[in-house]
Amino acid sequence: MNTVIEIKEYGARIGGGCFGFIAGPCSVESAGQIHRIAARVKAAGASFLRGGAFKPRTSPYGFQGLGAEGIELLVQAGREQGLAVVSEIMDIRTIDLFEGVDILQVGARNTQNYDLLRELGRTHKPILLKRGIAGTIKELLLSAEYIMASGNQQVILCERGIRTFDGGYTRNTLDLSAVPVLKELTHLPVIVDPSHATGRASLVEPMALAAAACGADGLMIEVHDDPGKALSDGHQSLTPGQFERLVGRVRAVREALK
Amino acid sequence: MNTVIEIKEYGARIGGGCFGFIAGPCSVESAGQIHRIAARVKAAGASFLRGGAFKPRTSPYGFQGLGAEGIELLVQAGREQGLAVVSEIMDIRTIDLFEGVDILQVGARNTQNYDLLRELGRTHKPILLKRGIAGTIKELLLSAEYIMASGNQQVILCERGIRTFDGGYTRNTLDLSAVPVLKELTHLPVIVDPSHATGRASLVEPMALAAAACGADGLMIEVHDDPGKALSDGHQSLTPGQFERLVGRVRAVREALK
Amino acid sequence: MNTVIEIKEYGARIGGGCFGFIAGPCSVESAGQIHRIAARVKAAGASFLRGGAFKPRTSPYGFQGLGAEGIELLVQAGREQGLAVVSEIMDIRTIDLFEGVDILQVGARNTQNYDLLRELGRTHKPILLKRGIAGTIKELLLSAEYIMASGNQQVILCERGIRTFDGGYTRNTLDLSAVPVLKELTHLPVIVDPSHATGRASLVEPMALAAAACGADGLMIEVHDDPGKALSDGHQSLTPGQFERLVGRVRAVREALK
Amino acid sequence: MNTVIEIKEYGARIGGGCFGFIAGPCSVESAGQIHRIAARVKAAGASFLRGGAFKPRTSPYGFQGLGAEGIELLVQAGREQGLAVVSEIMDIRTIDLFEGVDILQVGARNTQNYDLLRELGRTHKPILLKRGIAGTIKELLLSAEYIMASGNQQVILCERGIRTFDGGYTRNTLDLSAVPVLKELTHLPVIVDPSHATGRASLVEPMALAAAACGADGLMIEVHDDPGKALSDGHQSLTPGQFERLVGRVRAVREALK
Repeated sequence: MNTVIEIKEYGARIGGGCFGFIAGPCSVESAGQIHRIAARVKAAGASFLRGGAFKPRTSPYGFQGLGAEGIELLVQAGREQGLAVVSEIMDIRTIDLFEGVDILQVGARNTQNYDLLRELGRTHKPILLKRGIAGTIKELLLSAEYIMASGNQQVILCERGIRTFDGGYTRNTLDLSAVPVLKELTHLPVIVDPSHATGRASLVEPMALAAAACGADGLMIEVHDDPGKALSDGHQSLTPGQFERLVGRVRAVREALK
Repeated sequence: MNTVIEIKEYGARIGGGCFGFIAGPCSVESAGQIHRIAARVKAAGASFLRGGAFKPRTSPYGFQGLGAEGIELLVQAGREQGLAVVSEIMDIRTIDLFEGVDILQVGARNTQNYDLLRELGRTHKPILLKRGIAGTIKELLLSAEYIMASGNQQVILCERGIRTFDGGYTRNTLDLSAVPVLKELTHLPVIVDPSHATGRASLVEPMALAAAACGADGLMIEVHDDPGKALSDGHQSLTPGQFERLVGRVRAVREALK
Repeated sequence: MNTVIEIKEYGARIGGGCFGFIAGPCSVESAGQIHRIAARVKAAGASFLRGGAFKPRTSPYGFQGLGAEGIELLVQAGREQGLAVVSEIMDIRTIDLFEGVDILQVGARNTQNYDLLRELGRTHKPILLKRGIAGTIKELLLSAEYIMASGNQQVILCERGIRTFDGGYTRNTLDLSAVPVLKELTHLPVIVDPSHATGRASLVEPMALAAAACGADGLMIEVHDDPGKALSDGHQSLTPGQFERLVGRVRAVREALK
Repeated sequence: MNTVIEIKEYGARIGGGCFGFIAGPCSVESAGQIHRIAARVKAAGASFLRGGAFKPRTSPYGFQGLGAEGIELLVQAGREQGLAVVSEIMDIRTIDLFEGVDILQVGARNTQNYDLLRELGRTHKPILLKRGIAGTIKELLLSAEYIMASGNQQVILCERGIRTFDGGYTRNTLDLSAVPVLKELTHLPVIVDPSHATGRASLVEPMALAAAACGADGLMIEVHDDPGKALSDGHQSLTPGQFERLVGRVRAVREALK
């Protein structure tokens, strides 16, 4: 039987035939920003709100996120709109700050941070586990196993692009065949993040449609109400209007394939 | 204006809104085999018949194809069924043997065989140009440029998977984001070969659906009426019945996205 | 001026013209094992003893190391032989256990675990930072920057092979050109780990010689007195005798290039 | 017994303990250029002169080489200086033009052009076979097998860098562990081309030294007497003076390892 991840409070579900839209900005930037975006993605059909507060940036001099305050703003915005919230945790010592967060995300740089995985296995929250930057399918499954071996069976796997030789037009290479491969190998839900995978807004909708067509259980999409001014990843963010169109078209594809 | 490749005789078209199904065995093995398969893929909705006669095999001791006889059998089968035929040319000195072939295919190992490309640019047949094994988008476009600079504007680009680190579950990594990227950069039709990309029959339909969803102009699918006994690539071949199902579902996706 | 890492107590140095040999088993397995190996590598010319106590294993069901006890045994063996000791730290919460360890190693899976790097930047011990599994040169330098931005300038960079498509004969692809590239870009010492890079004992000496020839400041070599019975990575471990030969030949190469 | 490639006329040898230096410009540009360079590399210790006349360029609009005239100039320069000459052949139909060429080179884009390999297997000249752009060790050996299965046992294998994710500082990733791996698997001589692998003059000497240290049988080095004005690949060319220094240091490394 396929695992279903459900945040009952909000009726938000992923897996077992339920397709979930996780949407929101790369980073929480301000109360206004996250509330505006939350309202828009809710209206468009999302049931999960994403937003980074602790950001793993390649350079120590990049914007590192609002931290504890960012989490607070995200949780408030989610509650107000009736959206379950998802945010990345990088350091287990900050776990208390994530009390109001519904799903804890492990980013691609921490997919093999086994101490973190083991600790998250002792929590009672669902874990959204991203595939490593150059992680194999087997490594992803074994990282999930670290969480589950510690007692937490609620894991969502996320394909987010792998590093290959071709960095000219896309940031990573979205490996969509990982979706049907994982669906053959595991009962866990599998979602796709076309925003980080491609790094370009114009590619997000086509790859989201493709993900839905090959059997993904959900999508994680970066949405910003003013992408040109985003503090991080603006070039890959959809506007709320573009996201709404994407939701409609993804639903049409899923309907056609029933 | 987008380039449309058309084989008028058979009303077979790819590009400019027309979605083409190219189907058939990896290798032409016998008159009976290619005729049986041709009849089945025609009935299922294909308008192009594929079949290798000159096979580029990694080892000199592998089955190298039936050569001239294979081409002849393929052309006969295509004519009988009203299917345009596609076959790979590896050496320009064999060009005369391809007289009856409608579309000349350049395989991934020859994508940067510039002398071959230049010569094909002097023919009047459409060229199906596969992306190199580890070819960038830019290299693919410049290889097409070699053909076009010699006078032949009829080029179909084909994404067929790239070589990455993860060879455990799939033969190559199908890079579907290449489809919308290429559609942004060129007027040429872009098709996808999920059979060679994944190397596994169970992944062909999901990836074909994904290709259609993200904007491909056609598909190249390996079909064999007895995959277990195929002389090459049997593990990635669909049965005619599986191909028929695939066609129906691809059409449903395209319909939903109109 | 090039940074030199020195453990004064033992006269052990890496960088600024001093070439350091770090040798020892993949994992500390027992008091007897680590003492025997320590004596042999010291006699052969090593000035640093390595040995894993907390092991980052892809599977949660693999041997995870002896933990605190392993560190203790390693430190005892090092002191007895007058060798500085190096061991991997995976979780900052275990930092107190590493009091006797002279150099803290960050493994390839944690190269972008920024919280760990920041914390290590607040310690006063040298950090041996391994390149990520598919990490770029720039990412490695920026990860070092995380440590240095927190106040600790004592960083050793370690090339240990990158993940590429060719996994048939070697575990990773040792990227030796990273050595002269890094020497152009940074004042930090650069060492090479041919054991993890190649995964095969027969390749360790040739690649160690190559590393010395292209300008590395040191080597990290797995040595086990009974490789066939090693609990981890036995197939890539040299015997003490092989290590002794390697040291002599590396010194000959360096002498020739003075 | 290891295969030795020998051009008796000039006493030029590679393999079986003989280390050969192949040097010269990327492209033959003029009579003056190739004669000047030939004299300099001969004086510095090379026994083979390289120079491209038919150039496989990614773009059809790049400089494609002097063709037949280039071959003629190269051969003249080689004879005058007593150097065996090496040049790349891309199309078997040009074979007659290569009569005076001592070693026929197959470039990385043609490593799997099996028709070309088969034809070269019917010649009586040694073949210098470059590894494919993303070719595995096994594929390289099987491509050599195509030549040998056609009757020509004189094959030199050449590692020239593979395509990986890290294109920031070097053009390709020089996979030096391929050298000892190939030496374990085959009797054929193995040489290294650090010029194409790294794409940067400053990295050529360190990587040449590393190649010699890990057991290569020879080196292929781009040398130009005015790199800033070279029609192709000037940024990776050594000056004759730099090449002379390289030869001396490579010899010192080999002497030290005897």
